[in-house]
Amino acid sequence: MERIAGGVTAAKGFTAAAVAAGIKYRDRKDMAMIYSQSPCRAAGVFTRNVVKAAPVLWDKEIVGKMGPVHAVVVNAGIANACTGKEGYEACGRTAGAAAKALGIGERQVLVCSTGVIGMQLPIDRMADGAQKLAGLLEGGNEAGHRAAEAIMTTDTRPKEAAVQTVIGGKTVTVGGMCKGSGMIHPDMCTMLAFVTTDAAIDTALLQEALSRDVEDTFNMVSVDGDTSTNDTLLVLANGCAGNPPIREKNEDYRAFAAALHEVCTVLAKKIAEDGEGATALFEAKVVGADTKEHARTLAKSVITSSLTKAAIFGHDANWGRILCALGYAGVDFDPEKIELYLESEAGRILIYRDGKAADYSEEEAAKILSYPEVTAYVDMKMGGEEATAWGCDLTYDYVKINADYRS
Amino acid sequence: MERIAGGVTAAKGFTAAAVAAGIKYRDRKDMAMIYSQSPCRAAGVFTRNVVKAAPVLWDKEIVGKMGPVHAVVVNAGIANACTGKEGYEACGRTAGAAAKALGIGERQVLVCSTGVIGMQLPIDRMADGAQKLAGLLEGGNEAGHRAAEAIMTTDTRPKEAAVQTVIGGKTVTVGGMCKGSGMIHPDMCTMLAFVTTDAAIDTALLQEALSRDVEDTFNMVSVDGDTSTNDTLLVLANGCAGNPPIREKNEDYRAFAAALHEVCTVLAKKIAEDGEGATALFEAKVVGADTKEHARTLAKSVITSSLTKAAIFGHDANWGRILCALGYAGVDFDPEKIELYLESEAGRILIYRDGKAADYSEEEAAKILSYPEVTAYVDMKMGGEEATAWGCDLTYDYVKINADYRS
Repeated sequence: MERIAGGVTAAKGFTAAAVAAGIKYRDRKDMAMIYSQSPCRAAGVFTRNVVKAAPVLWDKEIVGKMGPVHAVVVNAGIANACTGKEGYEACGRTAGAAAKALGIGERQVLVCSTGVIGMQLPIDRMADGAQKLAGLLEGGNEAGHRAAEAIMTTDTRPKEAAVQTVIGGKTVTVGGMCKGSGMIHPDMCTMLAFVTTDAAIDTALLQEALSRDVEDTFNMVSVDGDTSTNDTLLVLANGCAGNPPIREKNEDYRAFAAALHEVCTVLAKKIAEDGEGATALFEAKVVGADTKEHARTLAKSVITSSLTKAAIFGHDANWGRILCALGYAGVDFDPEKIELYLESEAGRILIYRDGKAADYSEEEAAKILSYPEVTAYVDMKMGGEEATAWGCDLTYDYVKINADYRS
Repeated sequence: MERIAGGVTAAKGFTAAAVAAGIKYRDRKDMAMIYSQSPCRAAGVFTRNVVKAAPVLWDKEIVGKMGPVHAVVVNAGIANACTGKEGYEACGRTAGAAAKALGIGERQVLVCSTGVIGMQLPIDRMADGAQKLAGLLEGGNEAGHRAAEAIMTTDTRPKEAAVQTVIGGKTVTVGGMCKGSGMIHPDMCTMLAFVTTDAAIDTALLQEALSRDVEDTFNMVSVDGDTSTNDTLLVLANGCAGNPPIREKNEDYRAFAAALHEVCTVLAKKIAEDGEGATALFEAKVVGADTKEHARTLAKSVITSSLTKAAIFGHDANWGRILCALGYAGVDFDPEKIELYLESEAGRILIYRDGKAADYSEEEAAKILSYPEVTAYVDMKMGGEEATAWGCDLTYDYVKINADYRS
């Protein structure tokens, strides 16, 4: 497997477009489309929030029926959540406008929205935008990159990743883009993520690969503990690579799952490091846990702790807060047995062992924490399971961004 | 029942003292003692964090054995958590020094600590401080107030409450003090709280009254989602009021429980409104829930949401975040049916109904949110259960305080 440049248009047969549709922003592109002329198998993972945005309901239905999908239309600025019947109708209008322009069925178009909750979409502009996008579709990395920019909200940079691998003698590409910066919490982030691949694979296996992978990638990210109403992760597979279709869990399936995992991991980390107001990516790696689920729970508890996140911002090795966050995670362990290390490019030091502080230098710890990627490494000494979670520091800018996001 | 002035020394037979022991702070009183010459029945509720501070272990053992208690010694600055065997020995040394000076048994002295995790207590200063405190004990509100000041850490003001009621023809007083500002989360806050009463009551009933009450008071408070290693709530009852001892769940018990509830409610709210960096008390009241537990869970989810807290700071009626927080609480409900109101001294407005925004004025909403006590009132329309939770807004100062708390 090899990392390559590009995003949603990296895989064969996918084109993309972006347009300034004036949905809410006035000075930027705010709608994007992904399209494949060959019909795609689609899989998806959606928010578990009881309050689901209209596009989540629209997409869940289409993905659940396993029918072929050709296009995804995305807008930024307004989330189309808590918008009642009118909101759901807006999904139909948008998909319908895109379908008409593309010459496909309305239920072959997925729609996603991100932005403020509770506002209605300007439906005429959405339909106009969808129609325009259909005429602007292009292949190549530039087009994918413009789409990745158009779906941003409080994101400070577009997020893309792509890999290539060989399956059944054919080069298979998996690429993706995502957005997400605030209202980010495991299960899943507030994020929209789109992965495209030219692999030929069964719909059920595609869904299974995605559902499993998300547990170790997007569901291990938290910026602020808030699980959004709109979280959506979609994968479209159009089969253009020409590999023998993957119909069972053989070597080909594992190669595909590994490529998917790489793309999802890179995208998930990009969301964490671009968390609202963040100055650092904060990673928690828990090893030696008795079960995988406990490892995940402990790692997520550490990166979710507001106090720990604030200490990371202050480059303060206030490890008591990490111990505290492990302690309230709901997992039983012996605090006397575990070991805690802090790591970054600057080095790695033992911070806590035998139930108390290790003999470390505060200066060295502060130096380690001053780097843009910082890891808390915890050995539970209970077994062989491990998990990694990604978050970011808690900063003044997080408060600034969120105290008046709507204005 | 009547609210009266005072705190831990309001009830008959209780004295208190404060001293500058130089535990960590250099310029203020940082140790306090509560004392009753008459032996007290004691009840307690302690942190459920797996990582428990040494004094929590010390106190749990004493409260569990139901033996008589005479005194509590508290220090601020160092939490004596994650301090191993040495930390536990420090509890014994402190209690021993107090016991010797007071002429009581070492196991009749409870100890509590609050402050930085991981540092060892300066044990000689703790013992000196405990001895000095024994010589400074005084009755009256002033002494109680000084004790409430001495136990503060990042608190900006001392927190006290007291009430009087009549039980069996006798005036019974319940008073208390607490501290807590950061690392505050349901189950329980990071807080120390001490309630004293001259009521005569069985130890088991005292514990039951406390354990029940905490579910609706201290466990409904959150500042930052972090459940501390040191949380302790102690009640001492010395029987000096001369009421017929409460031995069953009769009218007298209910009168006592009501007085205890009032003191705990006032103290819990004081913690929320003095949350680190807070400019407003943020209350979530959930009514019409199908079960009490669901009502509590939903209310806590709202006041815990970082995004909602930041919006409250910005006086921004970003109600979608409240809906979102209800939605991810883990309770099933129909978003189309619920109603949301915002309230403060400035008034009350309907914000959301029938699955979408009500027709309200943003200016009026902003005005309501500009008051120092703000309530989100949610009617679930599912049943007759309700619960209230208290938190605060998320501000620049929260980040400032916690980015470098140890320096």
